[in-house]
Amino acid sequence: MTNSRNLPQIKKMNWKVLDSRYVYDKKPYMVMREDSVELPNGARIDDFFVFEYPEWVGVLPITPEGNIVLIRQYRHGIGRVCYELVAGVVDPGEPLEESARRELLEETGFSCHTLFPWITASANPSTHTNLCHIFLARNVECLQQQQLDETEEIAVEVVAPERAKAIMEGGEMMQSLHLAALWKYFSTLEK
Amino acid sequence: MTNSRNLPQIKKMNWKVLDSRYVYDKKPYMVMREDSVELPNGARIDDFFVFEYPEWVGVLPITPEGNIVLIRQYRHGIGRVCYELVAGVVDPGEPLEESARRELLEETGFSCHTLFPWITASANPSTHTNLCHIFLARNVECLQQQQLDETEEIAVEVVAPERAKAIMEGGEMMQSLHLAALWKYFSTLEK
Repeated sequence: MTNSRNLPQIKKMNWKVLDSRYVYDKKPYMVMREDSVELPNGARIDDFFVFEYPEWVGVLPITPEGNIVLIRQYRHGIGRVCYELVAGVVDPGEPLEESARRELLEETGFSCHTLFPWITASANPSTHTNLCHIFLARNVECLQQQQLDETEEIAVEVVAPERAKAIMEGGEMMQSLHLAALWKYFSTLEK
Repeated sequence: MTNSRNLPQIKKMNWKVLDSRYVYDKKPYMVMREDSVELPNGARIDDFFVFEYPEWVGVLPITPEGNIVLIRQYRHGIGRVCYELVAGVVDPGEPLEESARRELLEETGFSCHTLFPWITASANPSTHTNLCHIFLARNVECLQQQQLDETEEIAVEVVAPERAKAIMEGGEMMQSLHLAALWKYFSTLEK
């Protein structure tokens, strides 16, 4: 059942870029450009900002017992410690799955045999060029200690599904990409 | 069941800001600052970028028949037309619920009696200061035509739940905040 009220305009919704300039270029973490664009209806926006970030990966790791491996770290934008999924930036030329496996091992010490593509999403498709690719990893095992960068301080917690849900409901996990992956996971579990 | 391997460090995870300067200030859409920070372990990051955006709202509108009101619009960051939930920026001083109600009416022409807080999340808690507050609106009714800004071109579609799920699974909805709200909704429906 679809009730589409103004579908004819869909095909010509794309904006035309009239001018584009980089206003910040600190690769790979902050590449920001300012576009002047014209909309199909003729309206113009002269200062539309776009962020050219690298691709991101994430992992939703499930233990053989059905528990979930979460991490906690300080997030400076909102100024507090949050629960999250393992996630990181894809290195140049690195396959997505390899990147996800690497991040899981580095940030938690857990390893997995098989990764399934779980959700691909954007933090903000309006302003970000990149996507985040989150994989589901079943039967993860703790193999080693974390191997963190100097600028990473990450605590690992293995939690039962009910506890993960309480964390999400209680506002202790704020990252929308991770919430999407976890709520999708809960939508697939038997109630 | 919680297996916390390094919780003692949680309490002192917050970063200390050594210096902070605004590098871009085009209120309200682009206020960007660059912080020099010191981590609890003594590591320093001299160019950590933070975006001071206004609060955002979103609405997950359900019709009396259980269908879902979605919108489609061109998203310049990823360069294509996407399905989304109704969403927008909270005006200065505007209550969140009022803002959500206003966006729903303006972007779709639909109205609702009661809004329930559904999910609060961040597009990126690491770099964004703002949160997005998504409300669940049951029994929405189409009251009027859309009232769009000159720079908005938005198509409205009322879809069955199965179709909404197919849209999400098929990569036609990329906005992680909206995916989180919808997957949470599906996790609450009987299978």
